[in-house]
Amino acid sequence: MLIGKVKGSVVSTRKCENLVGNKFMIIDVLEHMQTGAKQLIAIDKIGAGIGEYVLVAQGSAARIGSGMPDAPVDAAIIGIIDDGTGLEQ
Amino acid sequence: MLIGKVKGSVVSTRKCENLVGNKFMIIDVLEHMQTGAKQLIAIDKIGAGIGEYVLVAQGSAARIGSGMPDAPVDAAIIGIIDDGTGLEQ
Amino acid sequence: MLIGKVKGSVVSTRKCENLVGNKFMIIDVLEHMQTGAKQLIAIDKIGAGIGEYVLVAQGSAARIGSGMPDAPVDAAIIGIIDDGTGLEQ
Amino acid sequence: MLIGKVKGSVVSTRKCENLVGNKFMIIDVLEHMQTGAKQLIAIDKIGAGIGEYVLVAQGSAARIGSGMPDAPVDAAIIGIIDDGTGLEQ
Amino acid sequence: MLIGKVKGSVVSTRKCENLVGNKFMIIDVLEHMQTGAKQLIAIDKIGAGIGEYVLVAQGSAARIGSGMPDAPVDAAIIGIIDDGTGLEQ
Repeated sequence: MLIGKVKGSVVSTRKCENLVGNKFMIIDVLEHMQTGAKQLIAIDKIGAGIGEYVLVAQGSAARIGSGMPDAPVDAAIIGIIDDGTGLEQ
Repeated sequence: MLIGKVKGSVVSTRKCENLVGNKFMIIDVLEHMQTGAKQLIAIDKIGAGIGEYVLVAQGSAARIGSGMPDAPVDAAIIGIIDDGTGLEQ
Repeated sequence: MLIGKVKGSVVSTRKCENLVGNKFMIIDVLEHMQTGAKQLIAIDKIGAGIGEYVLVAQGSAARIGSGMPDAPVDAAIIGIIDDGTGLEQ
Repeated sequence: MLIGKVKGSVVSTRKCENLVGNKFMIIDVLEHMQTGAKQLIAIDKIGAGIGEYVLVAQGSAARIGSGMPDAPVDAAIIGIIDDGTGLEQ
Repeated sequence: MLIGKVKGSVVSTRKCENLVGNKFMIIDVLEHMQTGAKQLIAIDKIGAGIGEYVLVAQGSAARIGSGMPDAPVDAAIIGIIDDGTGLEQ
Protein backbone atom coordinates (compact mmCIF):
# COMPACT_ATOMS: atom_id res chain seq x y z
CA MET A 1 0.00 0.00 0.00
CA LEU A 2 1.04 3.63 -0.25
CA ILE A 3 0.10 6.78 1.58
CA GLY A 4 -1.15 9.91 -0.10
CA LYS A 5 -3.10 13.07 0.56
CA VAL A 6 -6.55 13.59 -0.90
CA LYS A 7 -6.29 16.58 -3.21
CA GLY A 8 -9.65 16.69 -4.95
CA SER A 9 -11.93 14.65 -7.13
CA VAL A 10 -12.88 14.15 -10.76
CA VAL A 11 -16.33 13.93 -12.27
CA SER A 12 -17.08 11.41 -15.00
CA THR A 13 -20.64 11.28 -16.30
CA ARG A 14 -20.04 8.86 -19.16
CA LYS A 15 -18.47 5.85 -17.49
CA CYS A 16 -18.76 2.07 -17.15
CA GLU A 17 -22.12 1.12 -15.63
CA ASN A 18 -20.56 -0.81 -12.77
CA LEU A 19 -18.85 2.39 -11.60
CA VAL A 20 -22.01 4.42 -11.06
CA GLY A 21 -22.17 5.81 -7.52
CA ASN A 22 -18.43 5.83 -6.91
CA LYS A 23 -16.32 8.84 -6.09
CA PHE A 24 -12.98 9.25 -7.89
CA MET A 25 -10.50 10.99 -5.65
CA ILE A 26 -7.23 12.60 -6.79
CA ILE A 27 -4.43 11.41 -4.51
CA ASP A 28 -1.10 13.20 -4.13
CA VAL A 29 1.26 10.32 -3.34
CA LEU A 30 3.84 11.01 -0.60
CA GLU A 31 7.17 11.67 -2.33
CA HIS A 32 9.05 8.71 -0.85
CA MET A 33 6.17 6.35 -1.72
CA GLN A 34 6.02 7.33 -5.40
CA THR A 35 6.95 4.66 -7.92
CA GLY A 36 7.05 7.43 -10.47
CA ALA A 37 3.59 8.99 -10.59
CA LYS A 38 2.96 11.95 -8.30
CA GLN A 39 -0.78 11.46 -8.49
CA LEU A 40 -3.29 8.69 -9.00
CA ILE A 41 -7.06 8.34 -8.98
CA ALA A 42 -8.66 6.06 -6.37
CA ILE A 43 -12.23 5.24 -5.46
CA ASP A 44 -13.29 6.08 -1.95
CA LYS A 45 -15.45 3.75 0.11
CA ILE A 46 -14.35 5.27 3.44
CA GLY A 47 -15.48 8.87 3.11
CA ALA A 48 -12.10 10.63 3.16
CA GLY A 49 -12.05 14.41 3.04
CA ILE A 50 -9.80 16.71 1.06
CA GLY A 51 -6.48 17.19 2.86
CA GLU A 52 -6.63 13.87 4.76
CA TYR A 53 -3.80 11.34 4.57
CA VAL A 54 -5.03 7.98 3.35
CA LEU A 55 -3.85 4.41 2.75
CA VAL A 56 -4.33 3.35 -0.87
CA ALA A 57 -4.34 -0.25 -2.15
CA GLN A 58 -3.67 -0.95 -5.81
CA GLY A 59 -4.31 -3.78 -8.23
CA SER A 60 -6.80 -6.57 -7.67
CA ALA A 61 -6.81 -5.74 -3.95
CA ALA A 62 -8.64 -2.49 -4.69
CA ARG A 63 -11.35 -4.22 -6.66
CA ILE A 64 -11.87 -7.34 -4.57
CA GLY A 65 -11.16 -5.76 -1.20
CA SER A 66 -13.74 -3.06 -1.84
CA GLY A 67 -16.47 -5.56 -2.57
CA MET A 68 -16.54 -4.64 -6.26
CA PRO A 69 -14.96 -7.71 -7.83
CA ASP A 70 -16.48 -7.04 -11.26
CA ALA A 71 -15.75 -3.32 -11.50
CA PRO A 72 -12.84 -1.73 -13.42
CA VAL A 73 -11.16 -0.32 -10.32
CA ASP A 74 -7.39 -0.58 -9.74
CA ALA A 75 -6.92 1.75 -6.75
CA ALA A 76 -8.98 2.35 -3.62
CA ILE A 77 -8.73 4.33 -0.40
CA ILE A 78 -8.79 1.67 2.30
CA GLY A 79 -8.07 3.69 5.45
CA ILE A 80 -7.48 7.14 6.87
CA ILE A 81 -4.15 7.67 8.63
CA ASP A 82 -4.32 8.87 12.25
CA ASP A 83 -0.66 8.73 13.05
CA GLY A 84 2.58 7.16 11.90
CA THR A 85 5.85 6.33 13.64
CA GLY A 86 8.62 6.68 11.05
CA LEU A 87 6.41 8.34 8.45
CA GLU A 88 8.19 11.69 8.64
CA GLN A 89 11.24 10.08 6.96
CA MET B 1 -6.54 4.67 -12.13
CA LEU B 2 -4.81 7.35 -14.16
CA ILE B 3 -5.98 10.14 -16.42
CA GLY B 4 -4.82 10.61 -19.97
CA LYS B 5 -5.81 12.22 -23.24
CA VAL B 6 -6.84 10.13 -26.23
CA LYS B 7 -4.28 10.77 -28.95
CA GLY B 8 -5.17 8.29 -31.65
CA SER B 9 -5.55 4.60 -32.31
CA VAL B 10 -3.68 1.63 -33.67
CA VAL B 11 -4.87 -0.98 -36.13
CA SER B 12 -3.99 -4.63 -35.66
CA THR B 13 -5.40 -7.09 -38.17
CA ARG B 14 -3.50 -10.18 -36.98
CA LYS B 15 -4.44 -10.40 -33.30
CA CYS B 16 -5.79 -12.80 -30.68
CA GLU B 17 -9.29 -13.98 -31.61
CA ASN B 18 -10.81 -12.78 -28.36
CA LEU B 19 -9.77 -9.21 -29.21
CA VAL B 20 -11.72 -8.96 -32.47
CA GLY B 21 -14.04 -5.96 -32.45
CA ASN B 22 -12.06 -3.91 -29.94
CA LYS B 23 -10.56 -0.50 -30.53
CA PHE B 24 -6.99 0.13 -29.32
CA MET B 25 -6.58 3.76 -28.32
CA ILE B 26 -3.27 5.55 -27.80
CA ILE B 27 -3.40 7.41 -24.49
CA ASP B 28 -1.08 10.29 -23.57
CA VAL B 29 -0.82 9.93 -19.80
CA LEU B 30 -0.97 13.21 -17.83
CA GLU B 31 2.60 14.05 -16.78
CA HIS B 32 2.03 13.86 -13.02
CA MET B 33 0.23 10.51 -13.40
CA GLN B 34 3.03 8.81 -15.36
CA THR B 35 4.80 5.93 -13.65
CA GLY B 36 7.37 6.21 -16.39
CA ALA B 37 5.60 5.64 -19.70
CA LYS B 38 4.27 8.71 -21.48
CA GLN B 39 1.85 6.62 -23.52
CA LEU B 40 -0.07 3.39 -23.25
CA ILE B 41 -2.60 1.49 -25.33
CA ALA B 42 -6.07 0.91 -23.86
CA ILE B 43 -9.23 -0.66 -25.21
CA ASP B 44 -12.26 1.59 -25.38
CA LYS B 45 -15.72 0.37 -24.40
CA ILE B 46 -17.06 3.90 -23.74
CA GLY B 47 -16.66 5.55 -27.13
CA ALA B 48 -14.10 8.23 -26.27
CA GLY B 49 -13.06 10.66 -28.98
CA ILE B 50 -9.60 11.93 -29.86
CA GLY B 51 -8.65 14.81 -27.55
CA GLU B 52 -10.92 13.74 -24.68
CA TYR B 53 -9.56 13.23 -21.18
CA VAL B 54 -10.30 9.74 -19.91
CA LEU B 55 -9.97 7.56 -16.81
CA VAL B 56 -7.91 4.43 -17.50
CA ALA B 57 -7.86 1.28 -15.33
CA GLN B 58 -4.95 -1.14 -15.57
CA GLY B 59 -4.29 -4.75 -14.70
CA SER B 60 -6.98 -7.36 -14.08
CA ALA B 61 -9.49 -4.53 -13.50
CA ALA B 62 -9.35 -3.66 -17.20
CA ARG B 63 -10.09 -7.20 -18.26
CA ILE B 64 -12.69 -8.20 -15.69
CA GLY B 65 -14.28 -4.77 -15.31
CA SER B 66 -14.85 -4.54 -19.06
CA GLY B 67 -16.70 -7.82 -19.19
CA MET B 68 -13.86 -9.53 -21.07
CA PRO B 69 -12.43 -11.80 -18.37
CA ASP B 70 -10.77 -14.13 -20.87
CA ALA B 71 -9.22 -11.52 -23.17
CA PRO B 72 -5.57 -10.37 -23.11
CA VAL B 73 -6.38 -6.82 -22.10
CA ASP B 74 -4.43 -4.95 -19.40
CA ALA B 75 -5.72 -1.39 -19.82
CA ALA B 76 -9.17 0.02 -20.54
CA ILE B 77 -10.85 3.40 -20.79
CA ILE B 78 -13.48 3.31 -18.06
CA GLY B 79 -14.82 6.88 -18.06
CA ILE B 80 -14.61 10.26 -19.73
CA ILE B 81 -13.61 13.17 -17.48
CA ASP B 82 -16.05 16.10 -17.30
CA ASP B 83 -14.30 18.12 -14.67
CA GLY B 84 -11.76 17.82 -11.88
CA THR B 85 -11.11 19.79 -8.69
CA GLY B 86 -7.37 19.65 -8.05
CA LEU B 87 -6.52 18.17 -11.44
CA GLU B 88 -4.62 21.25 -12.62
CA GLN B 89 -1.92 20.28 -10.12
CA MET C 1 -0.88 -2.59 -23.38
CA LEU C 2 2.34 -1.34 -24.86
CA ILE C 3 3.90 -1.43 -28.30
CA GLY C 4 7.34 -2.78 -29.03
CA LYS C 5 9.46 -4.18 -31.83
CA VAL C 6 10.44 -7.83 -31.92
CA LYS C 7 14.22 -7.95 -31.65
CA GLY C 8 15.00 -11.62 -31.28
CA SER C 9 14.33 -14.61 -29.10
CA VAL C 10 15.82 -16.56 -26.24
CA VAL C 11 16.19 -20.30 -25.89
CA SER C 12 15.54 -22.03 -22.57
CA THR C 13 15.85 -25.78 -22.47
CA ARG C 14 15.47 -26.24 -18.72
CA LYS C 15 12.16 -24.54 -17.96
CA CYS C 16 8.80 -25.09 -16.25
CA GLU C 17 6.95 -27.98 -17.88
CA ASN C 18 3.89 -25.89 -18.65
CA LEU C 19 6.04 -23.63 -20.83
CA VAL C 20 7.19 -26.31 -23.26
CA GLY C 21 6.41 -25.35 -26.85
CA ASN C 22 6.36 -21.60 -26.28
CA LYS C 23 8.57 -19.06 -27.97
CA PHE C 24 10.16 -16.33 -25.83
CA MET C 25 10.58 -13.17 -27.86
CA ILE C 26 12.79 -10.21 -26.92
CA ILE C 27 10.76 -7.02 -27.29
CA ASP C 28 12.30 -3.55 -27.62
CA VAL C 29 9.64 -1.36 -26.02
CA LEU C 30 8.92 1.95 -27.83
CA GLU C 31 10.67 4.71 -25.91
CA HIS C 32 7.55 6.63 -24.90
CA MET C 33 5.83 3.42 -23.75
CA GLN C 34 8.66 2.35 -21.42
CA THR C 35 7.87 2.31 -17.72
CA GLY C 36 11.59 1.93 -17.18
CA ALA C 37 12.68 -1.25 -18.92
CA LYS C 38 13.84 -0.93 -22.51
CA GLN C 39 13.27 -4.63 -23.16
CA LEU C 40 11.04 -7.42 -21.93
CA ILE C 41 10.45 -11.05 -22.82
CA ALA C 42 7.00 -12.08 -24.09
CA ILE C 43 5.55 -15.32 -25.36
CA ASP C 44 4.25 -15.29 -28.90
CA LYS C 45 1.01 -17.00 -29.87
CA ILE C 46 0.53 -14.90 -33.02
CA GLY C 47 3.63 -15.71 -35.02
CA ALA C 48 5.32 -12.31 -35.09
CA GLY C 49 8.55 -11.93 -37.04
CA ILE C 50 11.71 -10.11 -36.07
CA GLY C 51 11.37 -6.41 -36.81
CA GLU C 52 7.56 -6.33 -36.56
CA TYR C 53 5.78 -3.90 -34.25
CA VAL C 54 3.54 -5.73 -31.80
CA LEU C 55 0.99 -5.12 -29.05
CA VAL C 56 2.06 -6.68 -25.75
CA ALA C 57 -0.24 -7.37 -22.77
CA GLN C 58 1.24 -7.82 -19.32
CA GLY C 59 0.16 -9.36 -16.04
CA SER C 60 -2.67 -11.86 -15.66
CA ALA C 61 -4.02 -10.76 -19.05
CA ALA C 62 -1.04 -12.41 -20.76
CA ARG C 63 -1.61 -15.71 -19.01
CA ILE C 64 -5.40 -15.92 -19.10
CA GLY C 65 -5.87 -14.16 -22.42
CA SER C 66 -3.47 -16.55 -24.12
CA GLY C 67 -5.37 -19.61 -22.97
CA MET C 68 -2.57 -20.62 -20.58
CA PRO C 69 -4.15 -19.82 -17.21
CA ASP C 70 -1.83 -22.15 -15.29
CA ALA C 71 1.46 -21.16 -16.93
CA PRO C 72 4.06 -18.77 -15.48
CA VAL C 73 3.66 -16.17 -18.20
CA ASP C 74 3.41 -12.44 -17.47
CA ALA C 75 3.74 -10.93 -20.95
CA ALA C 76 2.36 -11.97 -24.34
CA ILE C 77 2.28 -10.66 -27.89
CA ILE C 78 -1.42 -10.21 -28.59
CA GLY C 79 -1.40 -8.47 -31.97
CA ILE C 80 0.75 -7.19 -34.80
CA ILE C 81 0.48 -3.47 -35.55
CA ASP C 82 -0.54 -2.52 -39.11
CA ASP C 83 -0.81 1.19 -38.64
CA GLY C 84 -1.26 3.82 -35.96
CA THR C 85 -2.65 7.36 -35.97
CA GLY C 86 -0.73 9.31 -33.34
CA LEU C 87 1.91 6.63 -32.82
CA GLU C 88 4.71 8.79 -34.21
CA GLN C 89 4.40 10.82 -30.97
CA MET D 1 9.72 -10.16 -3.76
CA LEU D 2 11.82 -7.36 -2.37
CA ILE D 3 13.75 -6.84 0.82
CA GLY D 4 13.28 -3.89 3.12
CA LYS D 5 13.82 -2.77 6.67
CA VAL D 6 10.91 -2.21 9.03
CA LYS D 7 10.96 1.48 9.94
CA GLY D 8 7.75 1.97 11.90
CA SER D 9 4.02 1.65 11.59
CA VAL D 10 0.94 3.69 10.82
CA VAL D 11 -2.34 3.79 12.70
CA SER D 12 -5.64 3.92 10.84
CA THR D 13 -8.80 3.90 12.91
CA ARG D 14 -11.27 4.52 10.09
CA LYS D 15 -10.53 1.72 7.62
CA CYS D 16 -12.18 -1.07 5.63
CA GLU D 17 -13.83 -3.57 7.97
CA ASN D 18 -11.88 -6.51 6.57
CA LEU D 19 -8.65 -4.84 7.66
CA VAL D 20 -9.46 -4.67 11.37
CA GLY D 21 -6.76 -6.33 13.46
CA ASN D 22 -3.95 -5.85 10.96
CA LYS D 23 -0.74 -3.96 11.52
CA PHE D 24 0.48 -1.59 8.80
CA MET D 25 4.25 -1.45 8.77
CA ILE D 26 6.37 1.20 7.05
CA ILE D 27 9.07 -0.54 5.03
CA ASP D 28 12.25 1.18 3.81
CA VAL D 29 13.00 -0.72 0.61
CA LEU D 30 16.69 -1.60 0.02
CA GLU D 31 18.05 0.87 -2.51
CA HIS D 32 18.88 -1.66 -5.22
CA MET D 33 15.44 -3.27 -4.87
CA GLN D 34 13.48 -0.04 -5.32
CA THR D 35 11.34 0.23 -8.44
CA GLY D 36 11.04 3.90 -7.61
CA ALA D 37 9.42 4.16 -4.20
CA LYS D 38 11.74 4.31 -1.21
CA GLN D 39 8.98 3.22 1.16
CA LEU D 40 5.82 1.18 1.09
CA ILE D 41 3.24 0.02 3.61
CA ALA D 42 2.81 -3.72 4.19
CA ILE D 43 0.70 -5.77 6.57
CA ASP D 44 2.57 -8.00 8.96
CA LYS D 45 1.42 -11.53 9.75
CA ILE D 46 4.87 -12.66 10.94
CA GLY D 47 5.53 -10.33 13.85
CA ALA D 48 8.53 -8.42 12.51
CA GLY D 49 10.17 -5.84 14.76
CA ILE D 50 11.39 -2.36 13.91
CA GLY D 51 14.87 -2.54 12.37
CA GLU D 52 14.49 -6.10 11.04
CA TYR D 53 15.10 -6.93 7.38
CA VAL D 54 12.05 -8.56 5.82
CA LEU D 55 10.87 -10.19 2.61
CA VAL D 56 7.84 -8.40 1.15
CA ALA D 57 5.45 -9.83 -1.47
CA GLN D 58 3.29 -7.51 -3.53
CA GLY D 59 0.13 -7.78 -5.56
CA SER D 60 -2.38 -10.61 -5.30
CA ALA D 61 0.29 -12.74 -3.61
CA ALA D 62 0.10 -10.52 -0.52
CA ARG D 63 -3.66 -10.90 -0.26
CA ILE D 64 -4.07 -14.56 -1.14
CA GLY D 65 -0.82 -15.77 0.39
CA SER D 66 -1.69 -14.16 3.72
CA GLY D 67 -5.02 -15.96 3.93
CA MET D 68 -6.95 -12.71 3.38
CA PRO D 69 -8.25 -13.22 -0.16
CA ASP D 70 -11.07 -10.68 0.25
CA ALA D 71 -9.10 -7.90 1.95
CA PRO D 72 -7.70 -4.79 0.21
CA VAL D 73 -4.07 -5.68 0.84
CA ASP D 74 -1.40 -5.36 -1.87
CA ALA D 75 1.80 -5.85 0.17
CA ALA D 76 2.69 -8.20 3.02
CA ILE D 77 5.71 -9.15 5.08
CA ILE D 78 6.19 -12.85 4.34
CA GLY D 79 9.48 -13.60 6.07
CA ILE D 80 12.28 -12.22 8.21
CA ILE D 81 15.77 -12.33 6.69
CA ASP D 82 18.42 -14.19 8.68
CA ASP D 83 21.24 -13.96 6.21
CA GLY D 84 21.93 -13.39 2.55
CA THR D 85 24.75 -14.39 0.21
CA GLY D 86 25.10 -11.64 -2.39
CA LEU D 87 22.80 -9.22 -0.59
CA GLU D 88 25.56 -6.74 0.20
CA GLN D 89 25.66 -5.89 -3.53
CA MET E 1 9.17 -11.76 -18.21
CA LEU E 2 12.62 -10.43 -17.58
CA ILE E 3 16.09 -11.91 -17.64
CA GLY E 4 18.52 -11.74 -14.76
CA LYS E 5 21.58 -13.43 -13.34
CA VAL E 6 21.39 -15.44 -10.14
CA LYS E 7 23.63 -13.68 -7.63
CA GLY E 8 22.98 -15.53 -4.38
CA SER E 9 20.23 -16.42 -1.97
CA VAL E 10 18.66 -15.29 1.26
CA VAL E 11 17.75 -17.36 4.27
CA SER E 12 14.53 -16.73 6.16
CA THR E 13 13.74 -19.01 9.08
CA ARG E 14 10.67 -17.17 10.35
CA LYS E 15 8.38 -17.05 7.33
CA CYS E 16 4.84 -17.85 6.18
CA GLU E 17 4.11 -21.55 6.58
CA ASN E 18 3.22 -22.00 2.92
CA LEU E 19 6.73 -20.91 1.95
CA VAL E 20 8.58 -23.64 3.82
CA GLY E 21 10.90 -25.57 1.52
CA ASN E 22 11.36 -22.79 -1.02
CA LYS E 23 14.64 -21.18 -2.01
CA PHE E 24 14.77 -17.40 -2.29
CA MET E 25 17.27 -16.37 -4.94
CA ILE E 26 18.74 -12.89 -5.39
CA ILE E 27 18.46 -11.92 -9.05
CA ASP E 28 20.53 -9.17 -10.69
CA VAL E 29 18.18 -7.93 -13.41
CA LEU E 30 19.82 -7.20 -16.79
CA GLU E 31 20.21 -3.44 -17.07
CA HIS E 32 17.95 -2.95 -20.08
CA MET E 33 15.23 -5.09 -18.47
CA GLN E 34 15.11 -3.13 -15.21
CA THR E 35 11.90 -1.23 -14.49
CA GLY E 36 13.85 0.51 -11.76
CA ALA E 37 15.04 -2.16 -9.34
CA LYS E 38 18.46 -3.64 -9.98
CA GLN E 39 17.66 -6.71 -7.91
CA LEU E 40 14.66 -8.77 -6.90
CA ILE E 41 14.05 -11.95 -4.94
CA ALA E 42 12.49 -14.93 -6.75
CA ILE E 43 11.70 -18.46 -5.72
CA ASP E 44 13.41 -21.20 -7.68
CA LYS E 45 11.60 -24.34 -8.77
CA ILE E 46 14.08 -25.12 -11.57
CA GLY E 47 17.34 -25.51 -9.70
CA ALA E 48 19.29 -22.57 -11.11
CA GLY E 49 22.88 -22.10 -10.00
CA ILE E 50 24.68 -18.92 -9.04
CA GLY E 51 25.89 -17.11 -12.14
CA GLU E 52 23.25 -18.58 -14.47
CA TYR E 53 21.01 -16.36 -16.58
CA VAL E 54 17.35 -17.04 -15.89
CA LEU E 55 13.86 -16.07 -17.05
CA VAL E 56 11.79 -14.59 -14.22
CA ALA E 57 7.98 -14.23 -14.21
CA GLN E 58 6.33 -11.76 -11.86
CA GLY E 59 2.89 -11.24 -10.40
CA SER E 60 0.17 -13.88 -10.23
CA ALA E 61 2.01 -15.84 -12.94
CA ALA E 62 4.80 -16.65 -10.45
CA ARG E 63 2.36 -17.99 -7.89
CA ILE E 64 -0.08 -19.86 -10.11
CA GLY E 65 2.45 -20.95 -12.72
CA SER E 66 4.66 -22.51 -10.05
CA GLY E 67 1.85 -24.63 -8.68
CA MET E 68 1.69 -22.59 -5.47
CA PRO E 69 -1.58 -20.70 -5.96
CA ASP E 70 -2.03 -20.01 -2.24
CA ALA E 71 1.53 -18.92 -1.42
CA PRO E 72 2.74 -15.31 -1.06
CA VAL E 73 5.08 -15.46 -4.04
CA ASP E 74 5.28 -12.68 -6.63
CA ALA E 75 8.40 -13.67 -8.60
CA ALA E 76 9.70 -17.05 -9.78
CA ILE E 77 12.51 -18.41 -11.90
CA ILE E 78 10.74 -20.19 -14.75
CA GLY E 79 13.61 -21.11 -17.04
CA ILE E 80 17.36 -21.07 -17.53
CA ILE E 81 18.62 -19.22 -20.60
CA ASP E 82 20.75 -21.22 -23.04
CA ASP E 83 21.16 -18.63 -25.71
CA GLY E 84 19.55 -15.48 -27.03
CA THR E 85 19.51 -13.77 -30.44
CA GLY E 86 19.31 -10.02 -29.82
CA LEU E 87 20.01 -10.30 -26.10
CA GLU E 88 23.35 -8.53 -26.33
CA GLN E 89 21.40 -5.32 -27.03
